[in-house]
Amino acid sequence: MAFEKIKRSENYSEWYNNLVKNADLAEHSAVKGCMVIKPYGYAIWEKMQQQLDKMFKETGHSNAYFPLFVPKSLFEAEEKNAEGFAKECAVVTHYRLKSDPNHPGKLIVDPEAKLTEELIVRPTSEAIIWNTYKGWIESYRDLPILINQWANVVRWEMRTRLFLRTAEFLWQEGHTAHATKNEAIFETKQMLDVYTEFAETFLAVPVVKGVKTPNERFAGADDTYCIEGLMQDGKALQMGTSHFLGQNFAKAFDVKYTNKEGKQEYVWATSWGVSTRLMGALIMAHSDDEGLVLPPKLAPIQLVIVPIFRTDEEKELVFAEAEKIKKSLTQINISVKFDNRDTHKPGFKFAEWELKGVPLRIGIGPRDVANQTIELARRDNKTKQVINASELLTVIPELLKDIQNAMYQKALDFRNENITEVNSWDEFVSVLENKGGFIAAHWDGTSETEEKIKELSKATIRCIPLDNKLENGQCVLTGNPSSQRVLFAKAY
Amino acid sequence: MAFEKIKRSENYSEWYNNLVKNADLAEHSAVKGCMVIKPYGYAIWEKMQQQLDKMFKETGHSNAYFPLFVPKSLFEAEEKNAEGFAKECAVVTHYRLKSDPNHPGKLIVDPEAKLTEELIVRPTSEAIIWNTYKGWIESYRDLPILINQWANVVRWEMRTRLFLRTAEFLWQEGHTAHATKNEAIFETKQMLDVYTEFAETFLAVPVVKGVKTPNERFAGADDTYCIEGLMQDGKALQMGTSHFLGQNFAKAFDVKYTNKEGKQEYVWATSWGVSTRLMGALIMAHSDDEGLVLPPKLAPIQLVIVPIFRTDEEKELVFAEAEKIKKSLTQINISVKFDNRDTHKPGFKFAEWELKGVPLRIGIGPRDVANQTIELARRDNKTKQVINASELLTVIPELLKDIQNAMYQKALDFRNENITEVNSWDEFVSVLENKGGFIAAHWDGTSETEEKIKELSKATIRCIPLDNKLENGQCVLTGNPSSQRVLFAKAY
Repeated sequence: MAFEKIKRSENYSEWYNNLVKNADLAEHSAVKGCMVIKPYGYAIWEKMQQQLDKMFKETGHSNAYFPLFVPKSLFEAEEKNAEGFAKECAVVTHYRLKSDPNHPGKLIVDPEAKLTEELIVRPTSEAIIWNTYKGWIESYRDLPILINQWANVVRWEMRTRLFLRTAEFLWQEGHTAHATKNEAIFETKQMLDVYTEFAETFLAVPVVKGVKTPNERFAGADDTYCIEGLMQDGKALQMGTSHFLGQNFAKAFDVKYTNKEGKQEYVWATSWGVSTRLMGALIMAHSDDEGLVLPPKLAPIQLVIVPIFRTDEEKELVFAEAEKIKKSLTQINISVKFDNRDTHKPGFKFAEWELKGVPLRIGIGPRDVANQTIELARRDNKTKQVINASELLTVIPELLKDIQNAMYQKALDFRNENITEVNSWDEFVSVLENKGGFIAAHWDGTSETEEKIKELSKATIRCIPLDNKLENGQCVLTGNPSSQRVLFAKAY
Repeated sequence: MAFEKIKRSENYSEWYNNLVKNADLAEHSAVKGCMVIKPYGYAIWEKMQQQLDKMFKETGHSNAYFPLFVPKSLFEAEEKNAEGFAKECAVVTHYRLKSDPNHPGKLIVDPEAKLTEELIVRPTSEAIIWNTYKGWIESYRDLPILINQWANVVRWEMRTRLFLRTAEFLWQEGHTAHATKNEAIFETKQMLDVYTEFAETFLAVPVVKGVKTPNERFAGADDTYCIEGLMQDGKALQMGTSHFLGQNFAKAFDVKYTNKEGKQEYVWATSWGVSTRLMGALIMAHSDDEGLVLPPKLAPIQLVIVPIFRTDEEKELVFAEAEKIKKSLTQINISVKFDNRDTHKPGFKFAEWELKGVPLRIGIGPRDVANQTIELARRDNKTKQVINASELLTVIPELLKDIQNAMYQKALDFRNENITEVNSWDEFVSVLENKGGFIAAHWDGTSETEEKIKELSKATIRCIPLDNKLENGQCVLTGNPSSQRVLFAKAY
């Protein structure tokens, strides 16, 4: 292949950038911080979308669409939310261009087309949505409202990484309104469970479910729940969040409902989202030095057939058999690509599909046709096996299941090996530097200590795991009493 | 129902606005010119998207995603395109807000966070995409590129109508790159055919396929093909466009490829799009004074079951039968809603589902259960019929097909009755005022005459139909010679 190979062990960050580029997933655009998602990358994102959308609908949600722009006065209404996002807002101030009198053929912003009120390009949509919900909610009969939106959002970033941190990204944001606090908390946790199931079953990435510390909460939330994954370099990645927003937005936008007793009450809210960041998680959790490794459930191509031949007669024979295999697998809903290009040799094709992470490969030559055998190569563990052609329809679906499970198990083993309990500050620093991963340590529960630890070590509290066992201990930094361990890590 | 009914004959425009609002399709937002697409409206749009996406993929296209923003210098590159859109561009000039020192809790645009180059919120994506394609195309082997994008775009509008003309709208935009002029023209026409099939088979709206006059072309195109539908008030609606862009963008962005002979050549381009405007077409082509009338192929709910009962025993009986019907229809992929709300009476429910355009309704009472009969009401022509319960699974699919076809046939008859050939200016004015619809008239082919006619009558040339027969005649305004009739109409 005409591309440079970089090993994970040499430079993980460069390996990632190189892989995203060479596997045709995404690239930087002419707009600072914004990416182009290329067809192959977008096809994986589409598979994620379809599955998530199905899961949202199964849990009673509908899709809708709200404006891209938020008038500044609405954006300001929930102060903590506004303050949290103010520093990364793209602002529309004008609505017209005109010819530049000094440079024919060029345009300038028309100073006479200044907006009376600036518009914020949504960094998140709570403000515009709760301003809308105000008009939709009168009585308890109008609740709950269970809506999701697939959209682009903009958060101005100076230091960007493809998929992981970009100024514009694609995401879904659920926004729900409820009559009671309990219902809203139930929804918040339900959607965290949906994200967990999606991450583990489809991305094959095990996650820790937890709750964020006040410092790390979504701006405007009473509680932020999250799922945290672990990447191969030992850094954590926040993969999804689900926020219990209390009555903060209801109060900011004066959204009340009449309850069954005829009394006016503020509405309770949640919001939850995952984004194209999941592409980053998928890549970093599984890929190797040869390229992407895709879990079968999200692979746009699950099996590729590469023909091997020398003469025209062999070609005819092999192509006919390849088409036959493709047809029969397609009929059982397996996504198959027959790479019949005559511009490239088999070796090139093998490397290309390895790079692109296709879970299974069939290399087929005249001898295979004669013997009615099929050689299968797995992308995940690089093993090969030869099967009888008659076994095809039973073996392939099983193998795809095996690969999906093996990828999850491998990532789970890695994650579990990389949760380390530490009991002293020296140990904390040493594990963080030499091993990485999640560090389970006691913390005294104060923001001051949390910030101090971040300052000293660059590790943040990723979450307080939901299934945490309570145990008395002493804060790893201050020695103050603590009732449970929390998970620290360096994170993307 | 607690809403005002407005008749089409009284005020078509108010009827439309009222319907969009009351059927829960969309509403105006706090952002001038931007709409909120409500869940029921969005569910229809999703069905459109799914079908179109399938058709795009079947014709070899892949989806991808390009940035929301276009740097001004790129936007300017293709001058005609830039000039055409300059007056309706939302412009991002700053990337940060800060606390307003004079108003605690309020924010102002941070003057120190001014962008060195303004960013245009995409009104269409040719510029950013062709700037990207430049990096993807070297040789003929890289062609064609067949990409589609589902996205939001912004075109600042002062006078807006829900779905028909909004500052932000949702659409798909195909952008393809080809080695030869012929291939690009083939693609342009192929996608026009895809749009035609979609409009006629799914929306049940007959369209005229045609080509735009130079005056009405997309800015930057060599030719704009279009499909034009006719609404019930006799006004035309442009429902989709497919542009042959020649080498204009390739030249503006210097995109060349090496052909098989090793020679450098500019690449040929097309772009094509349909938008949430199709929602407007769907509504205006079919709906009546009772509300929306949806073609079964795009109806989120194809059949609604409304239970009718007095006693608890009757309720139990009727509910059990309703659930049984729902289950058996769901199994043959019919989308069924059982309206089991106990907060509303059957009459209210009948009116609500009529308003929402559900194609078929079953009203089921104890006598139906006893007799094993089912009463079916069609939304489109308001006829009712009683069938035997055992016939359900054969009758319903047939009826849905009938409704789809009948809606198309009705719209086709209306459209055909409203294409009027006129041969004098008096006749032109009289038909336009008294009858409306498409006017097939001779035109001398000059922009001056086209503009004069628009000025005098508000009618524009919708298109020169592709299947036009050539016939000698005289321009309806100037009397100058003409070789074919073109279609004039007032339009949305």
